[in-house]
Amino acid sequence: MPGRWQLPPGAVPTPAVVVDTAALDTNLRAMADSAAHRGIALRPHVKTHKSAEIARRQLALGAAGITVATVGEAEAFADAGVPDIFVAYPVWADAARAGRLRELAGRVRLSVGVDSATAAHRLAAALAGSPSQVLVEVDCGLRRSGVLPAGAGVVAAAATAAGLPVAGVFTPPGHSYAPGAPGPAAADESSALAAAADSLAAAGLPCPVRSGGSTPTAALSLGPANDGPVTELRPGVYAFNDAQQVVLGTCAVDQVALAVLATVVSVPADGRFILDSGAKVLGPDRPAWAPGHGLLPDFPVSVITGLWEHHAVVSHPASQPAPQAGDQMAVFPNHVCTAVNLVDSVYVAQDGQVVDVWPVTARGRNT
Amino acid sequence: MPGRWQLPPGAVPTPAVVVDTAALDTNLRAMADSAAHRGIALRPHVKTHKSAEIARRQLALGAAGITVATVGEAEAFADAGVPDIFVAYPVWADAARAGRLRELAGRVRLSVGVDSATAAHRLAAALAGSPSQVLVEVDCGLRRSGVLPAGAGVVAAAATAAGLPVAGVFTPPGHSYAPGAPGPAAADESSALAAAADSLAAAGLPCPVRSGGSTPTAALSLGPANDGPVTELRPGVYAFNDAQQVVLGTCAVDQVALAVLATVVSVPADGRFILDSGAKVLGPDRPAWAPGHGLLPDFPVSVITGLWEHHAVVSHPASQPAPQAGDQMAVFPNHVCTAVNLVDSVYVAQDGQVVDVWPVTARGRNT
Repeated sequence: MPGRWQLPPGAVPTPAVVVDTAALDTNLRAMADSAAHRGIALRPHVKTHKSAEIARRQLALGAAGITVATVGEAEAFADAGVPDIFVAYPVWADAARAGRLRELAGRVRLSVGVDSATAAHRLAAALAGSPSQVLVEVDCGLRRSGVLPAGAGVVAAAATAAGLPVAGVFTPPGHSYAPGAPGPAAADESSALAAAADSLAAAGLPCPVRSGGSTPTAALSLGPANDGPVTELRPGVYAFNDAQQVVLGTCAVDQVALAVLATVVSVPADGRFILDSGAKVLGPDRPAWAPGHGLLPDFPVSVITGLWEHHAVVSHPASQPAPQAGDQMAVFPNHVCTAVNLVDSVYVAQDGQVVDVWPVTARGRNT
Repeated sequence: MPGRWQLPPGAVPTPAVVVDTAALDTNLRAMADSAAHRGIALRPHVKTHKSAEIARRQLALGAAGITVATVGEAEAFADAGVPDIFVAYPVWADAARAGRLRELAGRVRLSVGVDSATAAHRLAAALAGSPSQVLVEVDCGLRRSGVLPAGAGVVAAAATAAGLPVAGVFTPPGHSYAPGAPGPAAADESSALAAAADSLAAAGLPCPVRSGGSTPTAALSLGPANDGPVTELRPGVYAFNDAQQVVLGTCAVDQVALAVLATVVSVPADGRFILDSGAKVLGPDRPAWAPGHGLLPDFPVSVITGLWEHHAVVSHPASQPAPQAGDQMAVFPNHVCTAVNLVDSVYVAQDGQVVDVWPVTARGRNT
């Protein structure tokens, strides 16, 4: 779909983050439908877009609530009127954060992640008397935070004993981020959630919520309609998609709903041109398996071989017509979540025109 | 100097970017003195700190002006009262940017980078009648933007013919960023600036400003006092330093003036703990030669082996006492410029207390 990122000259100062609202809405609806068909609740991770506007669209399409990574993000979305928020993170409730959690629990349906008895005791002290609940974080292969599945029952029992209602278990199948990895990671997610639920059952506890996630695995998770263990999904990136998802095969190029519009500022040598979309707008993420520091949808055989704060160096085949200084083009960031977090607002484009500007509501809300 | 990053419990919500103001001032003075001893003007690159407060300190220590990467940064620092600003970038003066450049030229002493005759014609149209000047960008080995040294005279002549005063040449020796590379990169900087000045002379043009830069090379650049060609330096990172500079040997651990204060949120397995300082506060930069995603000054044998948006995964030797959930520790980001750009303000610490909060004046000013 060449051309959908072209805007009238001067419409936006580059580098500019632009959202294709038609592609966005298509992505939101497709995931909502896909989860619903499998009998799985969708609780989108909003760390990707950090946008109150997009969260409202996700909720309007039937999302059960939202997922966030930090208490600060939860506060921003509570302020925006989102009524049901899960902090999918092993929150450590020090004194200041305990107060903030209590305040949140008074105005939204709050769920919080926990992965140890010690953290459960802290959270229980913070949330005592509120209807808030916790979910036990389970490590299904990422080897980040979380307990191994067989240990979930012990943490759940400790939380229960401390007076914290336990809604179930959750796992981040983030080891899906490599070519060939989504299938095995989805299988790991299923087996870990089932084993964790068994661990809770052995401790005499129910496990109604078994929550998985990640955009690369989301289409593969099996829920009630397929006799699978997954009751809820927490993908985030699917709203926009990005270069990583294209490379992983999770989406097609025309399903990417966010691009950085960049200007060619220099053509210093044959076969090389420079864009003003540097790491301070694309984000510096580059997994070893990515072909470059982002993708150029309208120049698919060119490669972003170098990325500095304000320069993207593009290697361009000598056989193709080279762009000229002043030309504009779209760049897909490798990882859209870190790109969006760099800007205070995004331009919204429809039919080749800028129709709106949306604030990045929870930008920088790290704490 | 263990302990200098310890703050009273609850002093700041983690992850928090903290500046050690004593180390900052030592760094600022050392570079000012070092440049002055060599007869070289210092024009610090403020993309590192983006802070009006720190720019004022640099100017008070004798800086000739400041360097920025974008017109937006120039506007922010002009608003803060900085009178002399060099945009060290091949600025493409499209219609909107031309207007902004004209506005800036009316209130500060403005210099702008240029690396082609085409760009010079655009800039001349934008800046006609103002006292603004350009410097020709020379590629000394980075292979990013810029002309090769022998081509500088052609660009300078085009600018002059278009009515743009040419102050001289500048080069970014950014290929200094690898172990063993600073020495050769400094030599490249010198020879490229000398050759570019010769190229201008051959076109009948003087070249009073020969501007180099980069923190890893800054101590090695030779100026008038040493019969060297460098008249000006534009380092940025030296204000704070970071993990990269420690690894390159540019600074010692106690010369790092900025850290992210992080909390241990999970100890999921022997030999592994999780900090809340993820890529959305440390920045995701990781060159292949870095030993990890940042450094832990108080746990020097631990390695940050994995970095997600809100998780830093630390591998900790089983032979050492392991931190506990709730412990706080300092993390040095790999690349401080991208870390600072993630937050709206930084905490300022002195003698173990938070004494101030400084806004990141030009955060996100990418255009």
